[in-house]
Amino acid sequence: MSSQDLKALKDQKESLLKNFESFKSRELALDMTRGKPCPKQLDLALPMLTSVSETNYKAANGTDCRNYGGLDGISEAKTLFSQYLEVNEDEIVIGGNSSLNLMHDTMVNAMIYGVCDSEKPWGKLPKVKFICPSPGYDRHFSICETLGIEMIVVSMDDNGPDMDQVEKLVSEDDSIKGIWCVPKYSNPTGITYSDETVLRLSSMKTKASDFRIFYDNAYSYHHLTDERPKLSNILERCKESGNPDRVFIFGSTSKITFAGGGLSMIGSSKTNIDYIKSKIAFQTIGPDKINQLRHVRFFEDLAGLENHMVKHAQILKPKFEKVTEILEKELSGLSIATWSDPKGGYFIDLDTMNGCATRVIALADEAGVKLTPAGSTYPLKKDPEDKNIRIAPSLPEVDELELAMEVLSLCIKLATIEIA
Amino acid sequence: MSSQDLKALKDQKESLLKNFESFKSRELALDMTRGKPCPKQLDLALPMLTSVSETNYKAANGTDCRNYGGLDGISEAKTLFSQYLEVNEDEIVIGGNSSLNLMHDTMVNAMIYGVCDSEKPWGKLPKVKFICPSPGYDRHFSICETLGIEMIVVSMDDNGPDMDQVEKLVSEDDSIKGIWCVPKYSNPTGITYSDETVLRLSSMKTKASDFRIFYDNAYSYHHLTDERPKLSNILERCKESGNPDRVFIFGSTSKITFAGGGLSMIGSSKTNIDYIKSKIAFQTIGPDKINQLRHVRFFEDLAGLENHMVKHAQILKPKFEKVTEILEKELSGLSIATWSDPKGGYFIDLDTMNGCATRVIALADEAGVKLTPAGSTYPLKKDPEDKNIRIAPSLPEVDELELAMEVLSLCIKLATIEIA
Repeated sequence: MSSQDLKALKDQKESLLKNFESFKSRELALDMTRGKPCPKQLDLALPMLTSVSETNYKAANGTDCRNYGGLDGISEAKTLFSQYLEVNEDEIVIGGNSSLNLMHDTMVNAMIYGVCDSEKPWGKLPKVKFICPSPGYDRHFSICETLGIEMIVVSMDDNGPDMDQVEKLVSEDDSIKGIWCVPKYSNPTGITYSDETVLRLSSMKTKASDFRIFYDNAYSYHHLTDERPKLSNILERCKESGNPDRVFIFGSTSKITFAGGGLSMIGSSKTNIDYIKSKIAFQTIGPDKINQLRHVRFFEDLAGLENHMVKHAQILKPKFEKVTEILEKELSGLSIATWSDPKGGYFIDLDTMNGCATRVIALADEAGVKLTPAGSTYPLKKDPEDKNIRIAPSLPEVDELELAMEVLSLCIKLATIEIA
Repeated sequence: MSSQDLKALKDQKESLLKNFESFKSRELALDMTRGKPCPKQLDLALPMLTSVSETNYKAANGTDCRNYGGLDGISEAKTLFSQYLEVNEDEIVIGGNSSLNLMHDTMVNAMIYGVCDSEKPWGKLPKVKFICPSPGYDRHFSICETLGIEMIVVSMDDNGPDMDQVEKLVSEDDSIKGIWCVPKYSNPTGITYSDETVLRLSSMKTKASDFRIFYDNAYSYHHLTDERPKLSNILERCKESGNPDRVFIFGSTSKITFAGGGLSMIGSSKTNIDYIKSKIAFQTIGPDKINQLRHVRFFEDLAGLENHMVKHAQILKPKFEKVTEILEKELSGLSIATWSDPKGGYFIDLDTMNGCATRVIALADEAGVKLTPAGSTYPLKKDPEDKNIRIAPSLPEVDELELAMEVLSLCIKLATIEIA
């Protein structure tokens, strides 16, 4: 920002502090820490609770969903969600209620056994590294952290991870075994990977022959506008590039039906899927087939799921608009923050000036607005520039969001003055 | 058997073979491979499917079970199932649909991180061994096998594992990190551990300071008669013996409500539970709370669950009785097989003469009766005496069981003649 702008901001300090005290006295208690659906969104899926009842608990092929059996999910769930993930029906496993669990187990199994084409279990190697495009999703990074996998930060741009950096890294270092990706409406930056990025990820030369893309397609149908960026089909690109086993695609209905009461799924080459099933066989006798049947009964087909997501957008869009409206009203022209304008997903990504984010979040907390802790969007929770803030607009009501964004804007101004 | 008995049996050979051909011509297709509940048992829990509906999805404390949150389960599920496992409410985690998954993950985490008081992760040690009382549950043994844990067979008697053997082994070898147990209506022998066995397990001196009992209490309320053996409370015994963190107790409603659509749980000391929760936090955002609420709504309380199990017994008891009736009719007095008369659980355990089991099961298969593969009840599927057969009476109808047991008895006679 210009020194003139800074002086103007500093001149307001006293009135800003007065505002801050006034917010504090209101004893707000607003929670925007996580991307939780709001009750109205959850209401949309209420009929699913009774879509399987005392008289219709059998799958289309006659399977009694109340009994044991079926390691990879019921047939109609594989049909529906293979379309959802854009893979073949023999390229999917439908799991339990948590795609994070599938990702964690996939990584743990790679450490213990290796992936299907590993020479050694990853955990037996002196060093395992993963590329972590950042800002990204904290729970991906936590899996690496807890398993002792070294994380290499690569920056994100409007097309996805910086592919020049990625290609250079993976071509030189065979201890780099994979990369985390949220390819559509990325968490938190909101961008969708360009066709070129998907192609380069699929076709790049990797020094590790058993390199894997952990592709968390958590928001594939989570559009906010009619402008729906098309994501290139990575499994097809991998096959065309001669790397058919490179990608694990994860999906979930946690933000479609019920958060924690949904389904998870993994799509990949048949070779990978067969290998994964051989490992799952030691873990469980099978997933909750009744909940899978509930989902298929409720959606009927992919068009039904898409229609359902339009209703989510109708609830979410005004919330995202309110966030950007207040940020624009309070901060535009000041050059002290920039923020994203996502076309889908769950987050608005905001950057303060360097060195401000921790202070902003502490101030907001003091004023009763809880935000995702500073640094969370980076490996080891260390944002090197201390500037990134993830805003999760889904849970609060619109009027609460207005208030929360006024508080946040005020805290950004105050923190900027403090460090300037 | 006496040579006279054998001669009498051999004299029947021709008529036995004729019977066998006659069974074969009937093209039976009876499956007794696994302990699957029958449809009538599953019907008992049908009201659970709609016990959570569009208007009552909140837990007693107001938690919206449709949303994220709550790593260890909803409060009322912890209340009910802590009574079920006989632990305190802060000594339990309610998981997803599979207790096998909880056991697997507990073992995997011990390999990767160690248990709470380990000096090193078990996977970093040159050797890890587990005691496997046998005959036992094949899926326990498979977990050890896939993780490269060496299995030490210890024999089972009417009071549980041979504790003289167990005590000697664990006192001498610090690479023995644990033991698998099915303490009530044991799979497959049907016995319940005596108070003395539980006490000795709890109090024995182990060379490994981080020794663990993996205590799969899968059949704790699965009585078949009014004669209900009481299992001593192992967590209390461990605490009294100064080994409070020694035991992980696993439970499941897979054979209470829906197989694969139930709940799993782990009970242990608070220290262990806190450690487990710290690991689960990397795996998942939380379990399916809606299904937990369904269960609590359906049972209301532990008395409700107990009443429910009485209805299961009414269905299962005639099946178990039919199995023993036919075995007695066909085989008693011949001294070519012995079998259990369990007071609960899911299995009747049968021993043929040494070296017969594989052949019996192959013959039965030829005649259209599928049984659990020979050897399954031993580590690495190797029954050293090739004599143990696990009979799972729950799934077939009584008339099918009659037929299947006639076939089995016939095959036992034929196999005995072959090896004699």
